[in-house]
Amino acid sequence: MPHPALPTLTSQLPAGTVVTDPDILAPYRQDRAFDPDAGTPLAVVRPARTEEVQTVLRWATEHRIAVVPRGMGTGLSGGATALDGGIVLSTEKMRDITVDPVTRTAVVQPGLLNAEVKKAVAAHGLWYPPDPSSFEICSIGGNIATNAGGLCCVKYGVTTDYVLGLQVVLADGTAVRLGGPRLKDVAGLSLTKLFVGSEGTLGVITEVTLRLLPAQPTACTVVATFGSVRAACEAVAAVTGKIRPAMLEFMDSAAINAVEDKLKMGLDRTAAAMLVAASDERGSSGAEDAEFMAAVFTEHGAREVFSTSDPDEGEAFVAARRFAIPAVEAKGSLLLEDVGVPLSALADLVAGVEALAAERDLMISVIAHAGDGNTHPLIVFDPADPDMTARAERAFGEIMELAVGLGGTITGEHGVGRLKKPWLADYLGPEAMELNRRIKGALDPDGILNPGTIF
Amino acid sequence: MPHPALPTLTSQLPAGTVVTDPDILAPYRQDRAFDPDAGTPLAVVRPARTEEVQTVLRWATEHRIAVVPRGMGTGLSGGATALDGGIVLSTEKMRDITVDPVTRTAVVQPGLLNAEVKKAVAAHGLWYPPDPSSFEICSIGGNIATNAGGLCCVKYGVTTDYVLGLQVVLADGTAVRLGGPRLKDVAGLSLTKLFVGSEGTLGVITEVTLRLLPAQPTACTVVATFGSVRAACEAVAAVTGKIRPAMLEFMDSAAINAVEDKLKMGLDRTAAAMLVAASDERGSSGAEDAEFMAAVFTEHGAREVFSTSDPDEGEAFVAARRFAIPAVEAKGSLLLEDVGVPLSALADLVAGVEALAAERDLMISVIAHAGDGNTHPLIVFDPADPDMTARAERAFGEIMELAVGLGGTITGEHGVGRLKKPWLADYLGPEAMELNRRIKGALDPDGILNPGTIF
Ligand SMILES: Cc1cc2nc3c(=O)[nH]c(=O)nc-3n(C[C@H](O)[C@H](O)[C@H](O)COP(=O)(O)OP(=O)(O)OC[C@H]3O[C@@H](n4cnc5c(N)ncnc54)[C@H](O)[C@@H]3O)c2cc1C
Ligand SMILES: Cc1cc2nc3c(=O)[nH]c(=O)nc-3n(C[C@H](O)[C@H](O)[C@H](O)COP(=O)(O)OP(=O)(O)OC[C@H]3O[C@@H](n4cnc5c(N)ncnc54)[C@H](O)[C@@H]3O)c2cc1C
Repeated sequence: MPHPALPTLTSQLPAGTVVTDPDILAPYRQDRAFDPDAGTPLAVVRPARTEEVQTVLRWATEHRIAVVPRGMGTGLSGGATALDGGIVLSTEKMRDITVDPVTRTAVVQPGLLNAEVKKAVAAHGLWYPPDPSSFEICSIGGNIATNAGGLCCVKYGVTTDYVLGLQVVLADGTAVRLGGPRLKDVAGLSLTKLFVGSEGTLGVITEVTLRLLPAQPTACTVVATFGSVRAACEAVAAVTGKIRPAMLEFMDSAAINAVEDKLKMGLDRTAAAMLVAASDERGSSGAEDAEFMAAVFTEHGAREVFSTSDPDEGEAFVAARRFAIPAVEAKGSLLLEDVGVPLSALADLVAGVEALAAERDLMISVIAHAGDGNTHPLIVFDPADPDMTARAERAFGEIMELAVGLGGTITGEHGVGRLKKPWLADYLGPEAMELNRRIKGALDPDGILNPGTIF
Repeated sequence: MPHPALPTLTSQLPAGTVVTDPDILAPYRQDRAFDPDAGTPLAVVRPARTEEVQTVLRWATEHRIAVVPRGMGTGLSGGATALDGGIVLSTEKMRDITVDPVTRTAVVQPGLLNAEVKKAVAAHGLWYPPDPSSFEICSIGGNIATNAGGLCCVKYGVTTDYVLGLQVVLADGTAVRLGGPRLKDVAGLSLTKLFVGSEGTLGVITEVTLRLLPAQPTACTVVATFGSVRAACEAVAAVTGKIRPAMLEFMDSAAINAVEDKLKMGLDRTAAAMLVAASDERGSSGAEDAEFMAAVFTEHGAREVFSTSDPDEGEAFVAARRFAIPAVEAKGSLLLEDVGVPLSALADLVAGVEALAAERDLMISVIAHAGDGNTHPLIVFDPADPDMTARAERAFGEIMELAVGLGGTITGEHGVGRLKKPWLADYLGPEAMELNRRIKGALDPDGILNPGTIF
């Protein structure tokens, strides 16, 4: 039965904006966390302009209806899971971009894909660095809302480092412009940065001003396999203490084998760990850094070290690393972790996860943005096996506790969403949690924005 | 007459922490904005530990006494100006630092000087990039509280880009830890970044976790003089669209002459503008970029172009640029502006300031972190001449209006403080201003933290 207030929303928006057809609604219920408890929304609303987003939020506030902002639904923490009786606000129709090559900025609407942003700015000889592995399927708005990371973070930082300005629509429908195409601006509180990573709980992002860099130089890639996970992790810290690699990724034995099963590219199935590293320093410095990394890997007992300055050859290994999640997913259902630790604790974290896997009799494959200390333990389970499912869920929490015990975080880049909410308060502690609540309360007093996410 | 509540504070803190001797108090009344209306505080309180800061704020909340946090008082916007009946909380005794070379982070107390941080981390082969010209005399806490910029921002970003974690004490005395030595952490709202640039209005920063980089490679420096200000500004944009210089600074004719008066280093007194640029790309790329910049400058009509890969020779020009403010100050009292524009509007901004100087019959020297579009018009006046003072004050506001009209900001790096508060609401607009107020209200409901700054 349609909600009695829905017609007043439909009548205020262009035809086709409010969708209630259950077949169309269905794929908007979950994101890539595949929450089995996802609700069924009243409607999916697909505004094309900021003014329409304002209309939606004014209406939602008036009727106290929950709004779940949604980009492309590739999130891994359940932040875009639909709620019974709420609406899903999808940004998919908001896809404009304007590039200003002199100021090296782009003004983008939230629904454009990360890959489309990269492509549009590349046409001007410019580069938007943030590169989540999902870059071809996730929206820039979702990236801002989760402060997405990726492979090049280790040198180039995360999404927030490229956000100069935002337009956001608050819960009550007010549209606010924050920052803009100025490289430095300290007038007032740092509110632009506050909205980055806010996971749809403080406002809906309707426009973004991005800082761009000149095109990235081509990279030299170094791939190394190790007989010991600890040795590989120690090699990572030995590299980042001296130089700034443009990528420093880790795969454990299970990931190597899962990828090799699918891609058959001749990876060493007997290796305990593999590192995929790159330097994009210019001129001869790239090759120098590649040589340096190769030497460090060898010193740390690497079995095989392979270097290439051929971009296609290098990209094949990066693609293998990016393919690790889908490859491991072929082994069963996944609980995908995202814990991060200070770099000095990386080896202990990976060893701890290995021990947990043995103890709980589970396959847990670890892949990592190793240079950042950000790991993704992938817990494989069979949802048809209730005992295994229970062990997997238990391990999910235990991995977070392990990371926190090592001075780490429960989420490095995927966000808290609904999935990790139960662990947030313990991680932050009562004072920081209360501070989070005060900010939420000040901006969304009725709690209509993405309830259940973070808070 | 001492405040009746002061003894209860004094008794809770180590001997010597609360100071009321008027001679000692005097230098704490103003910062480098030299606000003539600065008040006389009840006391200067110099805590040595976070717990003592908590004691101060609990007491201040109980008695509704204003607290002005203070680092080294080098601020240029009056953010650390004392208030009658308030206290000044100086961080000068909080000077610890611990460097972790593996994690490439440092945990620092707020009172340490920026230069001392740089030196301590350099001992581990590491580098803390942010480099306000005042780096030898300003505190790291003040840098965080103002989100300080500097010369290397054009490539390396501003202070916020290096802040991974904070400990802050809120108005009610609660100590909160935010973030930490994790390169990526998205658990909860981005509160660390919210406190960066909050100018002492949201809490007192008592500890900072900084992200460090490997040591900076030595730089190649290029200096060029121009017959036209516009040509110099256009050359700036032509450089940053293609490469990432590590510095790109501008001085106009008045600044060149003021520096030459003092340093007698043979600068061309007839030039309309001078650019001081550097590349710290490694290996031959540094020299390549220097050559590229020299070529761009020549194409844009530079009269003289000088390149050097000798660090000492290069540093002499950088020092000349850093010396510009004191040099121009020798000509009279200064109203020091800090407006920034999108890079495409830099030439128009400088031309507009020139026109204003002529119209108001004033000397206004423009120096700029040109690569960021962040300029410091220095308005010279004689405080003994009331008419001239009035014209200078009028020009101060008009320059901000000019910048805002060009899509710019009223402050790029010095902050709003008390000096620019009257212009903030107009610049931000009612929606963003209201959002600032809501956050302030949620964190400091009684308004005891630095009242009159920003809000
Ligand atoms: C194979 C795979 C690989 C991945 N690799 C990475 C990786 O390397 N790094 C990484 O960080 N993430 C990665 N992710 C996770 C995911 O792609 C990112 O979190 C991404 O930023 C989500 O974008 P989205 O458009 O899909 O957002 P959604 O999933 O639709 O939404 C994510 C969150 O943002 C909110 N949101 C979305 N748009 C807006 C808006 N306009 N205004 C306000 N709130 C909004 C939602 O409410 C939700 O809380 C990966 C995912 C997959 C499936
Ligand atoms: C010659 C000269 C050159 C300069 N060049 C630059 C430049 O290139 N770039 C630039 O950005 N600035 C520059 N400045 C301005 C100034 O040095 C910076 O703003 C600096 O960050 C201030 O540091 P401080 O320790 O002196 O802070 P203060 O002046 O003592 O305080 C500044 C503000 O921060 C607050 N604050 C200080 N410490 C804390 C704390 N622990 N917790 C909470 N709030 C606190 C104060 O309340 C005040 O609002 C220059 C100043 C001078 C005199």
